[in-house]
Amino acid sequence: MELQFLGTGAGIPAKLRNVTSIALKLLEERGSIWLFDAGEGTQHQILHTSIKPKRIEKIFITHLHGDHLYGLPGLLASRSFQGGEAQVTLYGPKGIKEYIEISLSISQTYLKYDLHIEEVTEGTIFEDDAFKVEALMLEHGIVSYGYRITEKDLPGKLLVDKLQQTGVKPGPEFKKIKNGEDVILEDGTLIQSSDFVGPPIKGRIVTILGDTKECEAAIKLAENTTVLVHEATFAGGESALAKEYFHSTTIQAANTAKKAKAEQLILTHISARYDSLQGNQLVEEAKEIFMESYLAEDFKVFPIPLSLVNRE
Amino acid sequence: MELQFLGTGAGIPAKLRNVTSIALKLLEERGSIWLFDAGEGTQHQILHTSIKPKRIEKIFITHLHGDHLYGLPGLLASRSFQGGEAQVTLYGPKGIKEYIEISLSISQTYLKYDLHIEEVTEGTIFEDDAFKVEALMLEHGIVSYGYRITEKDLPGKLLVDKLQQTGVKPGPEFKKIKNGEDVILEDGTLIQSSDFVGPPIKGRIVTILGDTKECEAAIKLAENTTVLVHEATFAGGESALAKEYFHSTTIQAANTAKKAKAEQLILTHISARYDSLQGNQLVEEAKEIFMESYLAEDFKVFPIPLSLVNRE
Ligand SMILES: [Zn+2]
Ligand SMILES: [Zn+2]
Repeated sequence: MELQFLGTGAGIPAKLRNVTSIALKLLEERGSIWLFDAGEGTQHQILHTSIKPKRIEKIFITHLHGDHLYGLPGLLASRSFQGGEAQVTLYGPKGIKEYIEISLSISQTYLKYDLHIEEVTEGTIFEDDAFKVEALMLEHGIVSYGYRITEKDLPGKLLVDKLQQTGVKPGPEFKKIKNGEDVILEDGTLIQSSDFVGPPIKGRIVTILGDTKECEAAIKLAENTTVLVHEATFAGGESALAKEYFHSTTIQAANTAKKAKAEQLILTHISARYDSLQGNQLVEEAKEIFMESYLAEDFKVFPIPLSLVNRE
Repeated sequence: MELQFLGTGAGIPAKLRNVTSIALKLLEERGSIWLFDAGEGTQHQILHTSIKPKRIEKIFITHLHGDHLYGLPGLLASRSFQGGEAQVTLYGPKGIKEYIEISLSISQTYLKYDLHIEEVTEGTIFEDDAFKVEALMLEHGIVSYGYRITEKDLPGKLLVDKLQQTGVKPGPEFKKIKNGEDVILEDGTLIQSSDFVGPPIKGRIVTILGDTKECEAAIKLAENTTVLVHEATFAGGESALAKEYFHSTTIQAANTAKKAKAEQLILTHISARYDSLQGNQLVEEAKEIFMESYLAEDFKVFPIPLSLVNRE
């Protein structure tokens, strides 16, 4: 599991930072990639990474501002052109269905895969055996969602040494025991799974917020999250500007991470007014409040290892 | 007057060539830029040029395929964000108005300038004292226009030496004579403008075609044109593919330029199947039929001097 930032700027594209898009790479976990937002040029950014558009399984749009949205029709069309055949599910605020349907139909674009569009309301928007995604509305002057992606706990490690001491040989029994089944050996010994499997491995939580002012929903979404991706359009001193434009400062983002007891904070959606030197200053401001703060850059990868939430 | 290519690829963006957009720079002639097509990432390409979006006066969309269109909402929005205040007129096939209105309204984008949208039909679509633009439909399986931009003839040069020999001094009289007015000197001498002004300077013609198969309308639009911009999605040997996909080969483009008696041909909309080496081969194929053939590259500038049509 890792996050790769494809665009980390605010409002309009700049040479240093493209408009917003974030890839949550779940290649080991489910062989797929989930995309969050798709500003114009997202497919161009992808050309410079190892991401294969056909691997994109789900796309979550936080809000319908152009800098988070306008790259979506091109990305969907190119994925088809490049041989993508597996279904894509697209989640986003009300209105996204009309926008995509008109963009595709007016350009006579016929996708070779099934595109399933779900207009989001608050609550659990997706759940399977391994992952759950919840959405809450933030405060941005337009409907803007934050998404909390919870990886379900994984079965504990098989205590191989202990098991071999009982005389069980590696094979089908190992698998049964690891999966929680009790097993009776040929000599009648009962092997209780719970004695030979470590505690469950805690899943990771990734919280990716759309643009927002400081708000309670952000804290709630980020509660005990492993990684919180939060916009920081403005520097710490610009809280008046942030309020006026329904955005956040570095300090507000750090306060949210702190209140939510997040493990890590990644700042993104950085205004083009800040050059790379000032970018470093931005993250320092956040660190004064929340030590584990990082600054996103276009193409930067943040690994999210299980060890982050399963400290030994 | 010059052409600058912002995107010269076909269908989907590639590292070497972005999707279609072409700037006709009329900075000397009218202090403005006219844009033809706006594939996704056009505003990103502009960031790497000297073009200022606020200078864009008119945008002509040839057809509504995504690779010619999907960069338009972002470009229009960013132009506003960057302080563009002068009106923009947008020309394109029927459907463009709905697409732009929905893209802007769904993203709550409010332009700070007047955007005037004209859905094009065949004929003269714009005319003022200096320029005329005509449109004809091509053959591309979707409504696709070619645009012929005609610069009106300019007044001839004032024959300064000859005029000074008559005793007229540089000043207001010079201007009147240059503008075609006859002037009576203090000593009663009649100075006939036509005796002291050279022949009118011929204006230039630029023909920019949307995607198309070989067709009569292309030849008609390109008749005696100074520069013909023609798609060449495929190499000369691929006429079956070109026909199937409603595109042209290098050889078909060159034949059109030849039949139309164009001065120059610029090939663009090059499939990503051809690398830069093969690109050189493409233009060689065209040159065998039409000597003055050139290959467009992203960011390449083609000057169109008056001397091209006013040979001495
Ligand atoms: Zn926004
Ligand atoms: Zn086309």
